[in-house]
Amino acid sequence: MQRKYSTYMNTFGHNFRFTSFGESHGLAIGGVIDGVPAGIHIDFNLIREELARRAGKGSIGVSPRSLREPDEVEWLSGVIEEPNPNPNPSGWSDAPRCSGRSDCQVKAILHLKGRELVTLGTPIAFIIRNKDARPEDYEWLKNTYRVGHADRTYEQKYGIRDWRGGGRASARETTGRVVAGCIAKQMLRLKGINIHARLVQVGAETDPKKFDEMIAAVHAEGDSIGGIVECVIDGLHAGIGEPIFHKLQAELAFAVMSINACKGFEYGTGFGGVTHKGSEINHISGGIAGGISDGSPVTFRCVFKPTASTPKAGVKGRHDACVAVRAVPVVEAMTALSLVQLF
Amino acid sequence: MQRKYSTYMNTFGHNFRFTSFGESHGLAIGGVIDGVPAGIHIDFNLIREELARRAGKGSIGVSPRSLREPDEVEWLSGVIEEPNPNPNPSGWSDAPRCSGRSDCQVKAILHLKGRELVTLGTPIAFIIRNKDARPEDYEWLKNTYRVGHADRTYEQKYGIRDWRGGGRASARETTGRVVAGCIAKQMLRLKGINIHARLVQVGAETDPKKFDEMIAAVHAEGDSIGGIVECVIDGLHAGIGEPIFHKLQAELAFAVMSINACKGFEYGTGFGGVTHKGSEINHISGGIAGGISDGSPVTFRCVFKPTASTPKAGVKGRHDACVAVRAVPVVEAMTALSLVQLF
Amino acid sequence: MQRKYSTYMNTFGHNFRFTSFGESHGLAIGGVIDGVPAGIHIDFNLIREELARRAGKGSIGVSPRSLREPDEVEWLSGVIEEPNPNPNPSGWSDAPRCSGRSDCQVKAILHLKGRELVTLGTPIAFIIRNKDARPEDYEWLKNTYRVGHADRTYEQKYGIRDWRGGGRASARETTGRVVAGCIAKQMLRLKGINIHARLVQVGAETDPKKFDEMIAAVHAEGDSIGGIVECVIDGLHAGIGEPIFHKLQAELAFAVMSINACKGFEYGTGFGGVTHKGSEINHISGGIAGGISDGSPVTFRCVFKPTASTPKAGVKGRHDACVAVRAVPVVEAMTALSLVQLF
Amino acid sequence: MQRKYSTYMNTFGHNFRFTSFGESHGLAIGGVIDGVPAGIHIDFNLIREELARRAGKGSIGVSPRSLREPDEVEWLSGVIEEPNPNPNPSGWSDAPRCSGRSDCQVKAILHLKGRELVTLGTPIAFIIRNKDARPEDYEWLKNTYRVGHADRTYEQKYGIRDWRGGGRASARETTGRVVAGCIAKQMLRLKGINIHARLVQVGAETDPKKFDEMIAAVHAEGDSIGGIVECVIDGLHAGIGEPIFHKLQAELAFAVMSINACKGFEYGTGFGGVTHKGSEINHISGGIAGGISDGSPVTFRCVFKPTASTPKAGVKGRHDACVAVRAVPVVEAMTALSLVQLF
Repeated sequence: MQRKYSTYMNTFGHNFRFTSFGESHGLAIGGVIDGVPAGIHIDFNLIREELARRAGKGSIGVSPRSLREPDEVEWLSGVIEEPNPNPNPSGWSDAPRCSGRSDCQVKAILHLKGRELVTLGTPIAFIIRNKDARPEDYEWLKNTYRVGHADRTYEQKYGIRDWRGGGRASARETTGRVVAGCIAKQMLRLKGINIHARLVQVGAETDPKKFDEMIAAVHAEGDSIGGIVECVIDGLHAGIGEPIFHKLQAELAFAVMSINACKGFEYGTGFGGVTHKGSEINHISGGIAGGISDGSPVTFRCVFKPTASTPKAGVKGRHDACVAVRAVPVVEAMTALSLVQLF
Repeated sequence: MQRKYSTYMNTFGHNFRFTSFGESHGLAIGGVIDGVPAGIHIDFNLIREELARRAGKGSIGVSPRSLREPDEVEWLSGVIEEPNPNPNPSGWSDAPRCSGRSDCQVKAILHLKGRELVTLGTPIAFIIRNKDARPEDYEWLKNTYRVGHADRTYEQKYGIRDWRGGGRASARETTGRVVAGCIAKQMLRLKGINIHARLVQVGAETDPKKFDEMIAAVHAEGDSIGGIVECVIDGLHAGIGEPIFHKLQAELAFAVMSINACKGFEYGTGFGGVTHKGSEINHISGGIAGGISDGSPVTFRCVFKPTASTPKAGVKGRHDACVAVRAVPVVEAMTALSLVQLF
Repeated sequence: MQRKYSTYMNTFGHNFRFTSFGESHGLAIGGVIDGVPAGIHIDFNLIREELARRAGKGSIGVSPRSLREPDEVEWLSGVIEEPNPNPNPSGWSDAPRCSGRSDCQVKAILHLKGRELVTLGTPIAFIIRNKDARPEDYEWLKNTYRVGHADRTYEQKYGIRDWRGGGRASARETTGRVVAGCIAKQMLRLKGINIHARLVQVGAETDPKKFDEMIAAVHAEGDSIGGIVECVIDGLHAGIGEPIFHKLQAELAFAVMSINACKGFEYGTGFGGVTHKGSEINHISGGIAGGISDGSPVTFRCVFKPTASTPKAGVKGRHDACVAVRAVPVVEAMTALSLVQLF
Repeated sequence: MQRKYSTYMNTFGHNFRFTSFGESHGLAIGGVIDGVPAGIHIDFNLIREELARRAGKGSIGVSPRSLREPDEVEWLSGVIEEPNPNPNPSGWSDAPRCSGRSDCQVKAILHLKGRELVTLGTPIAFIIRNKDARPEDYEWLKNTYRVGHADRTYEQKYGIRDWRGGGRASARETTGRVVAGCIAKQMLRLKGINIHARLVQVGAETDPKKFDEMIAAVHAEGDSIGGIVECVIDGLHAGIGEPIFHKLQAELAFAVMSINACKGFEYGTGFGGVTHKGSEINHISGGIAGGISDGSPVTFRCVFKPTASTPKAGVKGRHDACVAVRAVPVVEAMTALSLVQLF
């Protein structure tokens, strides 16, 4: 069997494009980011922090692999080092200081060094080696399709399947999204736009103080639980979004619904609004009117189902009790990747 | 002010592409459909029926304009007439019978005639004249922004605005979507795929027998009410959808969230699933796993807010008490346009 | 048979997109132009002049149909009329004066009226009715493939063919390109960019004063002759073009090679440069270095073969003795459509 | 300064997409190939041979760096190893034998091993480390723009420039094209399509037996010379190509004109045809009619200018006396990348 059709496959975006590659237990995962303007100072510490959020460091009920993987990013192209890191990166609209002048020492950059690099305007390629890859943990999967996983559909689609931890269907693929999304976030911040997501519901619980307790209990049962993430976009000026097919809400829904385990998206009055009359909720815009941002904060919510691979379901090994926890930075990343297209 | 960026603007799709144009109270609305294979027999009666559904014919609490507009489609290109309409259109995988042979009489086709035409493989352009356009009804809008409408954001985006009944922000724009979607539906049926949407909730009411009653009551108050539409895709074989960014659910969400007044999308376990543990709902797939169809019916739901333009809100003239009623065929059309890309 | 694959089909461009439709002897040809910013004042007289150039008005040895067709453009959407046409259109970077204010009278515009309209930022759709369509002239083509024409390959591709004057393969299709290209030209002029093409060779003749004489002689023989068109882009600032795959010269070659009968493209040192050593021609850039404009005029040349449909070849009816004559405005149009993408 | 606009930047193609990255003297160059069907057996020996052709191994007057670089490809994703390499790869339309069954041993593949791997249908990422990178050779370039090079235009476009051997403007970037193109070639061969390019002219010389002699003489002078490459596509069946904008010849011209130093493209009767009358050359199709392949071999020619960086021009170090020699496999690669889109 084989691919019978094509869409944009493993690339997200048109103007700022992130192409993702890599199998979960292959040699490396990584990506190419195309469309980053030249002269942007990238804060790699921020990327490292975002990767730690995604790995669930400091969270409860998280898969042990994600905690063990160092997620060290190797930058292959698109950035050069500056000798005198500028403490005030002015960024996007900035005239770069390092244009082949003799005071500028350009070196091959292997690992991020906790200091600023500047973009060349050329594609930024990066890889993250799979150091904790343990294909042998997944030998039993060669002849098994896990319930609630993509094992069977991958094989139906491609006729062949990388059984090593789910291949590209693994949540590990989101690591690259967080790297690219963090660069997008930094570009958006230069425009005054900030994206902040947080967990607002776990199971039926809506009090954040009780989330850890609930997740720990579910984890102890060998079970899993769903959650709702809310995301707010601040500082987005009016006039962003295409009014017909590529409405701002459609672009955001597309970006967020591409995250594993996401089962729904709503903004503004959402599903709850159905029980209200127009006269009661006319004034709520959710930050968008006619598909175009109106200058007020854009707020949306998305729901993540409980993971299917649990001890209770007979699935051995690594799993998360509540994937919504680690989805929070991925929601921010996809939101950033979606918005940065529009500038 | 002006467009500062661009995405795909007024075109939906990549392989089967629908480009929409026209202002609500301008000369005409219409579209170009590119990517329809040659030799397809199109059933124009079906298109007429779908347009009647969209216009709300037979429904309660519907804007009088949509009932008055004849929605007569003028076909400008891409189709030719066959002398002996074939009663068994075999369609997509069919060797056409009309290949420039002498028994084939090709004429310019002005209006649909209730009989079959066959496609040439070239772009199909169509227009629908705005016969009931009454710009004078909207004179008061020149200096006013309606609450809950896109009047202000259009002006913020473009610096200029067609105030005549909302211009392209009018629900009239969906007429073209229904035409293109109906052609997509016919192509999908040749593959054994059927799409069926229906209203499943109006306000808090979930009993379809009581929907008309509720809408009539809201209408009498000069108010409006929201609704939820459920859509089922039958016959979709396994293996459809791209597993990373362009997951099947992401494509569907994108398509459906582009409809005016749509505020949320969910599939499978949806938002309701958040209160369940993994062990309870692992078995529910919603027809998709890992972004790829699994061969079972795909089911999703979407919510439409109450319209903001109501007598109660001080907005004169034409409006709908429950836009979700007329959204049903539009949901089907956008679903069809989204799916047909994938073949 | 049917379409088995897809590319962008009948659309040219990404940011400024022209979608073309219509068969030569069908009801109408036309197009949709998407991506024109709001507030641009369009000079419709200029469009009319360009259409007259394309029709070969005033030229020798031109197909009689093109001279008879009035090429009257019907504008369906995307433009509105201003009451007090501004004598100094500042255009692209201009704040429009007509933003829904009460002194602005918006009307449905049916025919161009020789005065300025202003764009809404929404898609501009236009049609040109085929008034001189004479399908009966082409009855003999139903069972014949013309040498040097696309009759056979269309049928090989689609399994069906519009034999009426070549359908979409007719040079009449370029009418829409000239309309869209003229709008692109007007946008480029607001940036100070001018495009000027001219015929520089007919057969072996390079003296323009003798072109008419040569064409008349060839026409009298019932034969046809090729020609070379040179195009100069003035005012293009440095830094335009993508350096790897989408080099400026690659984009221009793509645009120009899409014109019927065009058989070659060269720029800078071109084919003639092959006989020179690097030391002799290093200094010639052709306006482009590394795929990026360098600020000097960009000059390229393209060759058009003699038309195959001639009385001498046994093909009755309408034909051109030297299609390169009428290709000149089409080369300008495609150049403009290609360049306007890049801003 | 910064990127002010965007097109497809560093990606070639829509259905089969090659994204290129890497600076000539940075850490690595590489690419991501998306759209390769699952279950294809890739011949890595062939890739190695093509890289050797591109490096000019066995040719005269070639830059010493290209001969020294081992061009060792590291495959990061998208392929798995089979235990029993199948001697008869049936390829594209083949049901793969390695679908997660227990007899299939999947390993992380670091280097190509001269044996067959099979594709997973997921993106294939590869890198080639720049082992002979010698940034210090280019120190003098920090403050200099070379004549005939892209040094200045890169800086005009991006405001910043990687002076190390031209960064991405270096011919080293074509290495990735050859890798991706060779995979495309293998796919096309499974369809019976073969691409063969060869040098047909060096300077004014058209006798291949004398090319080496002429290049050696030019090299001895410290000068450079241009050349013409002819490419033939055999086995392409009729019906390939989009008839309006994306004509087959337009796609090929676009692909080939994106190669460094390419100054012109012609097919069929080409530029030489201008001196003939229609009656003399009507029968020549060049394999394409109306933008669609007609089933006969497609033949085109392209011209490469002499390189500007020569000792005679005062440019020290590595250069080629006739870049057309090493362009031959790159022309084949770009032709393959262009054609493979269409299936």
